[in-house]
Amino acid sequence: MPVPVVPHSEVDVLIIGAGPAGLMCANALANAKVNVRVIDKRAARVAAGQADGLSPRTIEVFQSYGIAERLLKESVQVHQAAFYNPSPSGGIELTSRTQDVVAPSARYPFECALHQGAIQAIFIDSMKPLGVEVEWSTLPTSIEICKDEHVLMDPASHPVRVVLQKLNAPEGQLQEEIVHAKYVVGADGAHSWVRKQFDITMDGEQSDFIWGVMDMVPDTDFPDVRNKCLMHSNNGSILLVPREQDRLRVYVQLENKDIIDPATGRVDKDRMGPDEMLEVARKSFSPYKISPTTGFLWWTLYIIGQRVASQFSVKNRVLIVGDACHTHSPKAGQGMNAGVSDAHNLAWKIALVVRGWADLSLLSTYESERRKFALDLIVFDKMYSTLFSGKPLSQENSHGVAPEHFLEIFKQFGGFTSGIGVHYDPSVATLDKNQELASGVVIGERFPPYKFIRAADAWPFEIQDLLPADFRFKLLVFTGDFSEPLQQARVESMVATMQKPESFLNRYATSSKGAENSRFDIITISKGRKEGFNFLQFPMLLRSHWSKVFIDDIDVTGSFGGKGYSYYGVGDEGAIVAVRPDGYVGAIAPLDHVEDLDAYFTSFMTAAV
Amino acid sequence: MPVPVVPHSEVDVLIIGAGPAGLMCANALANAKVNVRVIDKRAARVAAGQADGLSPRTIEVFQSYGIAERLLKESVQVHQAAFYNPSPSGGIELTSRTQDVVAPSARYPFECALHQGAIQAIFIDSMKPLGVEVEWSTLPTSIEICKDEHVLMDPASHPVRVVLQKLNAPEGQLQEEIVHAKYVVGADGAHSWVRKQFDITMDGEQSDFIWGVMDMVPDTDFPDVRNKCLMHSNNGSILLVPREQDRLRVYVQLENKDIIDPATGRVDKDRMGPDEMLEVARKSFSPYKISPTTGFLWWTLYIIGQRVASQFSVKNRVLIVGDACHTHSPKAGQGMNAGVSDAHNLAWKIALVVRGWADLSLLSTYESERRKFALDLIVFDKMYSTLFSGKPLSQENSHGVAPEHFLEIFKQFGGFTSGIGVHYDPSVATLDKNQELASGVVIGERFPPYKFIRAADAWPFEIQDLLPADFRFKLLVFTGDFSEPLQQARVESMVATMQKPESFLNRYATSSKGAENSRFDIITISKGRKEGFNFLQFPMLLRSHWSKVFIDDIDVTGSFGGKGYSYYGVGDEGAIVAVRPDGYVGAIAPLDHVEDLDAYFTSFMTAAV
Repeated sequence: MPVPVVPHSEVDVLIIGAGPAGLMCANALANAKVNVRVIDKRAARVAAGQADGLSPRTIEVFQSYGIAERLLKESVQVHQAAFYNPSPSGGIELTSRTQDVVAPSARYPFECALHQGAIQAIFIDSMKPLGVEVEWSTLPTSIEICKDEHVLMDPASHPVRVVLQKLNAPEGQLQEEIVHAKYVVGADGAHSWVRKQFDITMDGEQSDFIWGVMDMVPDTDFPDVRNKCLMHSNNGSILLVPREQDRLRVYVQLENKDIIDPATGRVDKDRMGPDEMLEVARKSFSPYKISPTTGFLWWTLYIIGQRVASQFSVKNRVLIVGDACHTHSPKAGQGMNAGVSDAHNLAWKIALVVRGWADLSLLSTYESERRKFALDLIVFDKMYSTLFSGKPLSQENSHGVAPEHFLEIFKQFGGFTSGIGVHYDPSVATLDKNQELASGVVIGERFPPYKFIRAADAWPFEIQDLLPADFRFKLLVFTGDFSEPLQQARVESMVATMQKPESFLNRYATSSKGAENSRFDIITISKGRKEGFNFLQFPMLLRSHWSKVFIDDIDVTGSFGGKGYSYYGVGDEGAIVAVRPDGYVGAIAPLDHVEDLDAYFTSFMTAAV
Repeated sequence: MPVPVVPHSEVDVLIIGAGPAGLMCANALANAKVNVRVIDKRAARVAAGQADGLSPRTIEVFQSYGIAERLLKESVQVHQAAFYNPSPSGGIELTSRTQDVVAPSARYPFECALHQGAIQAIFIDSMKPLGVEVEWSTLPTSIEICKDEHVLMDPASHPVRVVLQKLNAPEGQLQEEIVHAKYVVGADGAHSWVRKQFDITMDGEQSDFIWGVMDMVPDTDFPDVRNKCLMHSNNGSILLVPREQDRLRVYVQLENKDIIDPATGRVDKDRMGPDEMLEVARKSFSPYKISPTTGFLWWTLYIIGQRVASQFSVKNRVLIVGDACHTHSPKAGQGMNAGVSDAHNLAWKIALVVRGWADLSLLSTYESERRKFALDLIVFDKMYSTLFSGKPLSQENSHGVAPEHFLEIFKQFGGFTSGIGVHYDPSVATLDKNQELASGVVIGERFPPYKFIRAADAWPFEIQDLLPADFRFKLLVFTGDFSEPLQQARVESMVATMQKPESFLNRYATSSKGAENSRFDIITISKGRKEGFNFLQFPMLLRSHWSKVFIDDIDVTGSFGGKGYSYYGVGDEGAIVAVRPDGYVGAIAPLDHVEDLDAYFTSFMTAAV
């Protein structure tokens, strides 16, 4: 009897793990028409519980992939945070309510809460028409990277060899497959198998704070059960997050004595179930009452720890994302958001490299950008979760957490926790130059939302909707006032420069004819008044279609708009802003020195073959 | 061989005609779970052309049925109108641009343009999951109403007998069916067969103005091809309406001599095709050029006439809607909107009568409300289309239309053309009383949009989204400031009155237990500040669910809201506003005389059997 031959296959990108980070990456690459597979050892997506909060920036990211609409339909929006503290008369009392999201430029000034399974379903349903489905019950059993540096540097090579085992293969059929991938993304969670195969260490430490978490539909006389509620009581802290379908997530701080086995000194999960957690919560809740109406929908226990992987990449061929490379407390609602943002940062870089539009070295910016974020995150998380788990200030505890201090920290770090303020340092992917030409548009940060009026029809558009995650660079040409002869001359000279053969626009044209250049999308934003504006005045490069020209004017109802130049800090002389495919500002150039963009794109782009 | 027996069937409502008005009615009744069938003699929905403009009020109506989202995705929005007039140097020139929609309270301050077939598809796809599909190729051949007044007054009777013929029945199968309907809706267009069967006359006249219309994707140097463009030239008038997918609709005024057969004096359609129309248009367009890039997508000719049916109803058992009961020019974009609004007005009345919640006499308000609107419409249309078809003012034509006069009329009638200002006169469906308690909420007009903050979670909601077309009356309880002891006492007394057995709330309770009252939805709108508000303070009647309480406060970002009481003209003493299922204000009552609502509902409601 012949030995069955294990099948071999090739794929551009293999994603290991179909949690939110892995699915975000898979969906993004599917959108980019990259040949991608995504496997998961589990048999299906999670049914309940797990992560549940999406930050304002993550909602913007979802919008850029066209999946925010469903998210907004299925989730609840958290607009307000309530702070409770010990009352002089015993029990707790409302100290203050404030805006949940403290990030003035957020397009969506709220968080979305929805259980992780529903979020996974959004990605899964989005990918399906693009031909990508999760291969469940599929376990990787070995992974190796080719050691030959020539092979590793060849963009056409498939240097990563992964053996897969199908856990549910029918009897008599082969259970193994050997996949040769150009890139592997490890999105396999806090206990990442991928990370361990490459002996990547997690640096950091575990705290002493133990928390329980449970989902329920509550019956309660507590008035803030539909706000995010941050509660310091003399019996421990509680965090409430409202959820879809009248549900409530309750995080409860536990006493170590309740959960540590005195004999071993280790956490003993048998000592604490949801009923015991509820008892703890009820003590903190006093004088209010709370009960689950239909039992506990999900629950778990965890010890807060803050760790970051020592590296996020192995030779730019294996890259890890999400919980696989950073763990922290769920208190600031960062877990799923950080993972999704990792994947969003990585996907366009992989897509451009796979397409042959960018050099392999662009992938190094994934680690430099996202590992720095993760390090910042755990510094913040240590401080924040210590404050949250700390005893409240009282006569007995004069070193306790003062309500006003906690509120202050909550507001101060709103830019960070909302994801809006995330800043990437200079690299080949961000050119630190000409910042003064657009002071409100920070290089290395996401392009902020604002509404402009489309010149041809006065239809107001949110500029972020002109920056979809379609894997193209957007060139926002702020022309200034084209009716000024000097400014018109400047714009026309810029167009002439950009049309020279040596300009990036022609050097990196996707098609050799240069007619259809799918790497760049030019959007014109002019000063002017809609009542007399003629968009046909612009050179053709600035109006490839009538829909490409916008004016910074107030809308027809007189309600908004008209201050975009000033909001973005762009002066009368104009500027060009290159926005990366992930919506972050890559470079800024003056109209009369558009060569700065040549330098930017040359640092990582490759000419079409 | 036995003679085959023609099958008989019963249905609550038979709709004849699956154009926009008929489909609107069918979809609404399907939503209301009314047993409804809709037939059309055509084989399928229209593929191109026909009506294409939806007014701001129609978009609100779509939103109330949950179908605006798709409309907004597929259509183009028309925000701006451009006015062109003869230039002193020959040809035309831009005179002014203005907001297309002049209706300050419009929730959607624009028109949507989309071809009729796509609009029909929205209704068809919305009804399908509710089990209602259009029966195409089905022709009514006779219709009779029972003459017995006792039968006619019996809500359980099926007094309308319609014989249907199936045009595409397979060979050998029966082609006839006899339908016994409680109600028949004639939505079968300007040449309505239903109308003719009952000898209902169309009163009015035909004008001398002949227009051509064509759809194309234009190649042009005309800068206003994406705005609605109203053009008076010395060669005739032109109306441009931008459309989906770069399309353009061009209405061209024609000279009678080009199209009237001199021998007969009648319109001869063979004399004028799209090429000839384009030639006429080009003369008016000078100095601009226009050509279709891919030919003509659709075209037709029409003579403007304004007529209204002498009656809209036969014994409240056969009712006609849309073009079947009024025809006018398409210039003001009213055709499809008027038909859709007829159906929207009629559907909830039929639904309530069929459910046994309302007396048959409620149906009389369909004719009183919508026929008056149709009469107003043709008065307006005569004036407007005469101005539009008129020669421009010039030295040769001192009685011509002055640009500023036309613009003035355009703005002055914005409330009417937008559909926002439509006003229904007092009847059993609108109680003309207590208007002074809510001066910004006009009895007989649609409830205007405004944003309120949900008390439990500070989530801002558009109040129109709390008024879906779900066939329930909404009772908006403006409580005033509940923390004022006097006002609290007033609210509690009102609640006590409403909970008395003789109150409409109990008399017209759907369930005898009164616990789940599906005829009424109570929404509480309080004064107060979100920072300290406790929605649990209200009596249970005013908070059947935590999501039912709103406050008139500014949103968490400080951007909007907080002036709702003043916008609606409601004072500190509060008020109750009863909003009809179609979103129109039915009645207003003071908190301390809620019996006014008893009078209102008693005038048409029937108690549950």
